[in-house]
Amino acid sequence: MFTAIVSAETLRTTLDSVSVLVDECKIHLTEDGLEIRAVDPANVGMVDLELEAAAFESYEADGGIIGVDLSRLEDIAGMADAGQLVQLELDEETRKLHIHIDGLEYTLALIDPDSIRQEPDLPDLDLPARIVIEGRDIDRAVRAADMVSDHIALGVDTAAEHFYVDAEGDTDDVHLELGPEDLISLELGEAHSLFSLDYLKDMNKAIPADGEVVVELGEEFPVKFHFDIAEGLGNVTYMLAPRIQSE
Amino acid sequence: MFTAIVSAETLRTTLDSVSVLVDECKIHLTEDGLEIRAVDPANVGMVDLELEAAAFESYEADGGIIGVDLSRLEDIAGMADAGQLVQLELDEETRKLHIHIDGLEYTLALIDPDSIRQEPDLPDLDLPARIVIEGRDIDRAVRAADMVSDHIALGVDTAAEHFYVDAEGDTDDVHLELGPEDLISLELGEAHSLFSLDYLKDMNKAIPADGEVVVELGEEFPVKFHFDIAEGLGNVTYMLAPRIQSE
Amino acid sequence: MFTAIVSAETLRTTLDSVSVLVDECKIHLTEDGLEIRAVDPANVGMVDLELEAAAFESYEADGGIIGVDLSRLEDIAGMADAGQLVQLELDEETRKLHIHIDGLEYTLALIDPDSIRQEPDLPDLDLPARIVIEGRDIDRAVRAADMVSDHIALGVDTAAEHFYVDAEGDTDDVHLELGPEDLISLELGEAHSLFSLDYLKDMNKAIPADGEVVVELGEEFPVKFHFDIAEGLGNVTYMLAPRIQSE
Repeated sequence: MFTAIVSAETLRTTLDSVSVLVDECKIHLTEDGLEIRAVDPANVGMVDLELEAAAFESYEADGGIIGVDLSRLEDIAGMADAGQLVQLELDEETRKLHIHIDGLEYTLALIDPDSIRQEPDLPDLDLPARIVIEGRDIDRAVRAADMVSDHIALGVDTAAEHFYVDAEGDTDDVHLELGPEDLISLELGEAHSLFSLDYLKDMNKAIPADGEVVVELGEEFPVKFHFDIAEGLGNVTYMLAPRIQSE
Repeated sequence: MFTAIVSAETLRTTLDSVSVLVDECKIHLTEDGLEIRAVDPANVGMVDLELEAAAFESYEADGGIIGVDLSRLEDIAGMADAGQLVQLELDEETRKLHIHIDGLEYTLALIDPDSIRQEPDLPDLDLPARIVIEGRDIDRAVRAADMVSDHIALGVDTAAEHFYVDAEGDTDDVHLELGPEDLISLELGEAHSLFSLDYLKDMNKAIPADGEVVVELGEEFPVKFHFDIAEGLGNVTYMLAPRIQSE
Repeated sequence: MFTAIVSAETLRTTLDSVSVLVDECKIHLTEDGLEIRAVDPANVGMVDLELEAAAFESYEADGGIIGVDLSRLEDIAGMADAGQLVQLELDEETRKLHIHIDGLEYTLALIDPDSIRQEPDLPDLDLPARIVIEGRDIDRAVRAADMVSDHIALGVDTAAEHFYVDAEGDTDDVHLELGPEDLISLELGEAHSLFSLDYLKDMNKAIPADGEVVVELGEEFPVKFHFDIAEGLGNVTYMLAPRIQSE
């Protein structure tokens, strides 16, 4: 059983956070809210999303799992105006999701969850460096790095006490340093890892420019990005595996 | 003889209403105003447009017919700012239209009207259902249907007393119901017909979102859409032939 | 030695004025400011640009020359917000330009100036007609001419006392007349020359719509366009060679 009413904006933010990595996903409809975990086909980027029942106007579920085509559901959510409510109702018999937006009813065929790539377990990593940064600074770093390279290094200089971003191209380089005065907070720790810029560009699309992002980093370790959605009633974690750096 | 001055906005609205269906058309320059009738090459969608002399700043004509390339004339009208006036003057000798916009003169070669597809006669149909609806609701229905199908059914449920839109895709369906409280007016009558969405999407481009549209419907009959342009000093009728529904 | 701080807006305007004609250019870093001269590969359009030291927040140079990839430098300048400052610093050893924008450092490899097309000498021409016109009127003329032709004639009718623009297409023509009341000033002189519209369209992209442009014209002679940038602390001259008119 699943029936819920949610603002179009919250629904869109939720879907966009996942669709930057995968086309289809399983959604766990727990009593306490939605949960989505997904990994891209190359097993490099992962997402873990929770949206509390309190983020909905109304929410009732008893623990089922549905499989959805994300771009299709995004298109439907895109039919609603920013302030409009979207009503979702699962028909257990037909395995279809009935979506109501102000008189409009869309009947969406669901995907068999067993046909969707298995959900990843995001490992608990004890990463030594922890940076809290504004989303817009991640955007800036990613766009600058993209001008010169396909890779981006993220690291912390414990001596100089700053977080840095490095991208080295064939002829040009980009370097960004953000000290404690530029960051919301900075916990120093040995950290330097290289990442594929393509993945970071995709994740960046869903990171809110005006929100806080917690970045956890290590030495040749995955990076984790945490941020809130739905005014704190939901949260997203991205994990991105590092590229092996040639000596 | 033909000489007229018209606001760029009125000229553009007039041309756009016709160009969604055809590339070229004949314009009748009657004493009382402009008249355009046209049908698309497949004989499925028709337009009948009238623009009264009163919609012009000044207007003088004595009954000639000119043939125009609509996209070319739209480009010229697009050179004017929203508030600017466009002056049109026919040179009978050269069969060219002189178009003046604030010091700029464009000399447009006309098309021989005899080389343009014959004008249709829009049949007088006594359609049983008549719905008056806001343009934005047509837009909504068309965009939603477009997500699932190439066809769209329009109909009236006389028992439930509402106008409905249906689109059935391979896996997903869209259904929109608008009752008397959602419509400007509703005259009940047996009506259900299937239409090509491509044509309706084209017509929808020219239907004003914030205007009233009269929809006339029957059982497997053409649909007619009527709406005003130029603040009521002109009007447009579209007629769209139904698709034969397979049993 | 070269080190300077300049607003992102002034830097972008400067680069855009040159990049409409060439991909790479030499920049002369004189004590008094920047100087750029360049000609397109076909030797038809030339640009001569000066930006005074006073247009910078700070400026120090001793006469060197650097070669730059304009689109790359434009991309970097595009990273800055409108109000932000861009710091430029030349590393003479590595022949790299260090560009700082609020914590972001971009290291740009320069191009060997000897590998860049030789700079033109813009001839001193004593052109008989001189028109001072608003940039937006040049834009209007160019866009209208572009609807009918690949060429555009600019001229002065000394008898009727106006500046005119003519474009003749296969079927349609465009004619624009601007008299003393439409212009900022008009010095009459025999003038009529035909130009390639492609070049004029490119130059038009960099001509400020709300600025004054001085146009100097003759009989089958090049045209010169002069306009200010950086609030009068810089100026640009374009020269465009005429097309030979067939009799």
